[in-house]
Amino acid sequence: MNKKIKVKVVGATGYGGLGIIDLLLRHPYAEIGALVAREDAGRRISDVYPHLAGYCDMPILAADDPAAQGAFDVVFFSTPDRVGMADAKRELALGAKVIDYSGDFRFTTLAAYQDYATRLGRDPNHLSPELLGTNVYGLPELHRAEIARANLVGNPGCFATSCILGLSPAAKAHLVKPQSIVCDCKSGVSGAGKKAKPQFHYPERCEQINAYRLSGHQHVCEVERELSLQGGEDVKIIFTAQVLPISRGILSTLYGDLARDVTEQEVLDIYREFYAGSAFVRVLPSTAATGTMSVRGTNRCEIVVSVDQRVRKLRIVSIIDNLVKGQAGQALQNMNVMFGFPETAGLDKPGMYP
Amino acid sequence: MNKKIKVKVVGATGYGGLGIIDLLLRHPYAEIGALVAREDAGRRISDVYPHLAGYCDMPILAADDPAAQGAFDVVFFSTPDRVGMADAKRELALGAKVIDYSGDFRFTTLAAYQDYATRLGRDPNHLSPELLGTNVYGLPELHRAEIARANLVGNPGCFATSCILGLSPAAKAHLVKPQSIVCDCKSGVSGAGKKAKPQFHYPERCEQINAYRLSGHQHVCEVERELSLQGGEDVKIIFTAQVLPISRGILSTLYGDLARDVTEQEVLDIYREFYAGSAFVRVLPSTAATGTMSVRGTNRCEIVVSVDQRVRKLRIVSIIDNLVKGQAGQALQNMNVMFGFPETAGLDKPGMYP
Amino acid sequence: MNKKIKVKVVGATGYGGLGIIDLLLRHPYAEIGALVAREDAGRRISDVYPHLAGYCDMPILAADDPAAQGAFDVVFFSTPDRVGMADAKRELALGAKVIDYSGDFRFTTLAAYQDYATRLGRDPNHLSPELLGTNVYGLPELHRAEIARANLVGNPGCFATSCILGLSPAAKAHLVKPQSIVCDCKSGVSGAGKKAKPQFHYPERCEQINAYRLSGHQHVCEVERELSLQGGEDVKIIFTAQVLPISRGILSTLYGDLARDVTEQEVLDIYREFYAGSAFVRVLPSTAATGTMSVRGTNRCEIVVSVDQRVRKLRIVSIIDNLVKGQAGQALQNMNVMFGFPETAGLDKPGMYP
Amino acid sequence: MNKKIKVKVVGATGYGGLGIIDLLLRHPYAEIGALVAREDAGRRISDVYPHLAGYCDMPILAADDPAAQGAFDVVFFSTPDRVGMADAKRELALGAKVIDYSGDFRFTTLAAYQDYATRLGRDPNHLSPELLGTNVYGLPELHRAEIARANLVGNPGCFATSCILGLSPAAKAHLVKPQSIVCDCKSGVSGAGKKAKPQFHYPERCEQINAYRLSGHQHVCEVERELSLQGGEDVKIIFTAQVLPISRGILSTLYGDLARDVTEQEVLDIYREFYAGSAFVRVLPSTAATGTMSVRGTNRCEIVVSVDQRVRKLRIVSIIDNLVKGQAGQALQNMNVMFGFPETAGLDKPGMYP
Repeated sequence: MNKKIKVKVVGATGYGGLGIIDLLLRHPYAEIGALVAREDAGRRISDVYPHLAGYCDMPILAADDPAAQGAFDVVFFSTPDRVGMADAKRELALGAKVIDYSGDFRFTTLAAYQDYATRLGRDPNHLSPELLGTNVYGLPELHRAEIARANLVGNPGCFATSCILGLSPAAKAHLVKPQSIVCDCKSGVSGAGKKAKPQFHYPERCEQINAYRLSGHQHVCEVERELSLQGGEDVKIIFTAQVLPISRGILSTLYGDLARDVTEQEVLDIYREFYAGSAFVRVLPSTAATGTMSVRGTNRCEIVVSVDQRVRKLRIVSIIDNLVKGQAGQALQNMNVMFGFPETAGLDKPGMYP
Repeated sequence: MNKKIKVKVVGATGYGGLGIIDLLLRHPYAEIGALVAREDAGRRISDVYPHLAGYCDMPILAADDPAAQGAFDVVFFSTPDRVGMADAKRELALGAKVIDYSGDFRFTTLAAYQDYATRLGRDPNHLSPELLGTNVYGLPELHRAEIARANLVGNPGCFATSCILGLSPAAKAHLVKPQSIVCDCKSGVSGAGKKAKPQFHYPERCEQINAYRLSGHQHVCEVERELSLQGGEDVKIIFTAQVLPISRGILSTLYGDLARDVTEQEVLDIYREFYAGSAFVRVLPSTAATGTMSVRGTNRCEIVVSVDQRVRKLRIVSIIDNLVKGQAGQALQNMNVMFGFPETAGLDKPGMYP
Repeated sequence: MNKKIKVKVVGATGYGGLGIIDLLLRHPYAEIGALVAREDAGRRISDVYPHLAGYCDMPILAADDPAAQGAFDVVFFSTPDRVGMADAKRELALGAKVIDYSGDFRFTTLAAYQDYATRLGRDPNHLSPELLGTNVYGLPELHRAEIARANLVGNPGCFATSCILGLSPAAKAHLVKPQSIVCDCKSGVSGAGKKAKPQFHYPERCEQINAYRLSGHQHVCEVERELSLQGGEDVKIIFTAQVLPISRGILSTLYGDLARDVTEQEVLDIYREFYAGSAFVRVLPSTAATGTMSVRGTNRCEIVVSVDQRVRKLRIVSIIDNLVKGQAGQALQNMNVMFGFPETAGLDKPGMYP
Repeated sequence: MNKKIKVKVVGATGYGGLGIIDLLLRHPYAEIGALVAREDAGRRISDVYPHLAGYCDMPILAADDPAAQGAFDVVFFSTPDRVGMADAKRELALGAKVIDYSGDFRFTTLAAYQDYATRLGRDPNHLSPELLGTNVYGLPELHRAEIARANLVGNPGCFATSCILGLSPAAKAHLVKPQSIVCDCKSGVSGAGKKAKPQFHYPERCEQINAYRLSGHQHVCEVERELSLQGGEDVKIIFTAQVLPISRGILSTLYGDLARDVTEQEVLDIYREFYAGSAFVRVLPSTAATGTMSVRGTNRCEIVVSVDQRVRKLRIVSIIDNLVKGQAGQALQNMNVMFGFPETAGLDKPGMYP
């Protein structure tokens, strides 16, 4: 039997860190070597997440703890923007592969990163510009081969994952006009992370749905770039982020003006062919009964296809669990691809229902 | 002091009936005369809804109960399609004004009704075709004067209300291309009524959001007709109905391709002028913090306006309480208009928060 | 027509402040004169709570704002412990009546206050000991006459209200052994206030029920004192506080060993006689269908009575809305009693359902 | 490698059936041979539960389908009362072991069964009285050895599991007076099964907590018998069932009058010794932060111990997932014990969080 690879998780106490811990505990070829977080250093991870007691009682280490140094096979940065870009270089130099959850390595040119940061009113200065170009966008359904060769992967945004998977086959097949796309996205609250905020206080949220950041969301750049790549033409989208009172789940309803006559069956065929080798994507007809609970706790993306001939529009409903395919599951999938493990290793299970 | 008008509520035990009872209990000029329902006849309404105990303990009458006959000033049919169309004529003949919640009187020509029924695969035979043309579509913000003269009003659908209010000023001002409109609508579960159904069983719903009836929703006809009327041109929409785990609330996100250059401020001005005389509509800029909880329990419609210049699209977020402005509140508002009461009588109060 | 009394609300931006604002907006004999809060001074209350827009757009004042000084008829301190005790004296001197929501004036002797504070590990030093003895415990169902004469009222705790109302008739009639009482209390999240906390973050709460402060809860002292007063004997209770994923509502299940043979009907009679003059208390038999939604948004307390003859125990289920009868509604009821208004003024309405 | 045992699940489409399917899909030594249900025969299980698509697409068989006959190693009856008692004999005769979820085989004498059925007002006639006495009560923590030898196991009730596990060590050690026990139990809605009912309709439940069946709950008999067995004296309890708006989880708060002086630490020691060989039970001190989310999706029972010296009462908080340790997980644990598999096989994993 082969030795398992050793994993370091930075940002272990957030939902993204917890997600990868949960998955690694069941992974056949990988195991956790160190858990790092800014807060709670010195406690056990099972003090923070009691459901882990008996399964993972490892200590949470400060970043500079000696036990967190040294050689790991892979480091996950489940951290906000600007953490991974500061520390990835050192990890790479030590021989680790790096998977970063933030926007730091989702762009492969400095100009693209700066455009992203500037749009959001953030610091456009990248701390490791020399790494840009060596990184790969970690959406395996689109970039499997590059990911397999990469040492540095930028894990996609959760909304972006649902939109890109939902629209890539259409973009590639030129089914819709590239500037006509509407992405109406709804997310559960866990997408905003573990930190308590006024708008996510239970009494303020349990009957609340609202749209936010109408002026621009950080995931738009990724979606436009990936869809443009697929179609070989400049795609622009209007994107609406909305939060709902569910814990997990994204449902994105995606619209585009048909560029040519097409039936639902033809769209189904195009989508199914596109995802033929992708175990986690299920393409479904417009009559399918599905929703966020069908993918909860799984790495699946379910895509419902429909065509409204009256108005000549394509409509796609794309559903993921934001914490799995939208975050830790996708990160693990990337790890599998990067290390040559079966892509579904540790991810091949139905979710919890009800 | 004037005598209060007497009201009969048919379908009193559903959410639509309960809603009008709740409102009538606080109304200065109207009072409940009879409660009718198919089920639960013989029980008190406060047996069905214990929160009414001490406030409304009236008996629930069968439709043919003598106490439910005779002269009422107004009859609300809070009933499914095909009930009001059978019974309205008799009530009108007895001198009552009639407000029907269903699709029965939302269309003013037989052809329009048949188109609606046919699209939904329902019986296209209208039971009182001679009444069509005497009825008025009960959206007071658009049809106040006709409603004031009407004896028979078809109360709009809940989704339709949010979409029509959200888009009418744009349609009238020709801000958007009439065939480009996307209506992405999210509703709380109460919109489906009081009857328990498998998909609304608590464990099946609490983490579920799903789209349904992708092939066509019954409210589309209303929306297209009203927007076409406003703009004087043929409007067609793509419409997506989605259900969320909240009890009350509709949030509709509405998109259209700009027909001409316009700024958010110009749109705000157009919308505010359009709704200048409408106490229940609040027009807000894109930076406003609002959501379904801001309108819960009220007859308000909140409309958030934004323009995405990058893609030249108008985006409107339109929010109502589906049980109030989307149903009983609007019905009461119609009653107020029909009887010459102040339009806000019995409706002028903030909702419950949190 | 008489002039309305002027009200100042200190702590206006919390749920307790919002509650009293909501009620005062509909009160026939009182109106808001000033809103005071530590945070958000300078904003309008409708900026903090958008649902109030158009109904209450008053500015939030700092405590030392000139507009917050001067003569008010009544001042509500919807503030944590130790605020009211510092400021009540000044308000009283200016001629206002004072109603305080905290523990500051729930005890009428320094010793009792110190016992309370010490048990909780808090500062036992009371800042206005000379006021103790002039204050009255604001549970109108038990202390109506004293409240009517009082200038200073300590509003009861929310859990305490449900327990005391649930058990007082039994204590007075010596139905149960005074040291046998179990109070198993469940509360919605709003009972913890408006401030976001990790354990009330939506994803952490939506499937969570937990018990807390097993070592001792601040409301125990009140319950034991009031029940001891009723029975004229020393009552001690075991009390468990639990939080559930609902926004509003307390359901307390109360148990005691029967001190003598009694039937459910006899208990019903005793309870109904006890609450004969109390409009907000409904006493129900064990077969009644009720729950937190039956009292939501109302000042009601519903009390379900049952006797388990097998084990010779009395069991009472006592249900309130923690934000109304457990807080602002009770405060308003106290105000009504203090000013000689009808006790139900501004409170006599059914809640929102569903 | 050994051949996996073949399992038949009767009642496969309810939550109890789904639970065992989910667990069997990951079990190292067992596999599903047939799925039987009264409804939905002819459909695939993944048509009923879309999240199973790709993991379990087996057909649902009618009970008399030839493919559902023949030799299985074990048959789970996830069925209401009176199904298992009719069919178990035939399965046993065919050589299968049988695990029944209902009350049919929770009692080992006809008299005990009749007492149970009579109390509930049900038919006291048992259809297989000759099997009573061969069956074993399937709570492995108490009856591991008998279960290992049994061919017929009655799986405990969900509330009963939480109460019995919470109180058995106290009963055995005579910590509490045997007639003083209060069981205050709160359950998520899934405990009531998959069938939609009016009181579990989302809008009727999302803010509702209520007590029900105050006159007597079917799980009382089990709890009293098991605790009496542990203590060798006649235990009687008062039991309150309450439903909350969560999907999964039971939290039972259990009280008893101390029979002798004892400290929390002594109670902890007694409990920990009692459960020394039981992997699924965690005993925690009163300061522990836990709740239903800590056990969600797992076969764990968490038991929080506290002693209130002021009133000389023991208080135990006992927490399980009603669908796992309260149902399918316990059934699988029983299967493991009956077949000599490791008791934790297929059950040894943390739950989903958040």
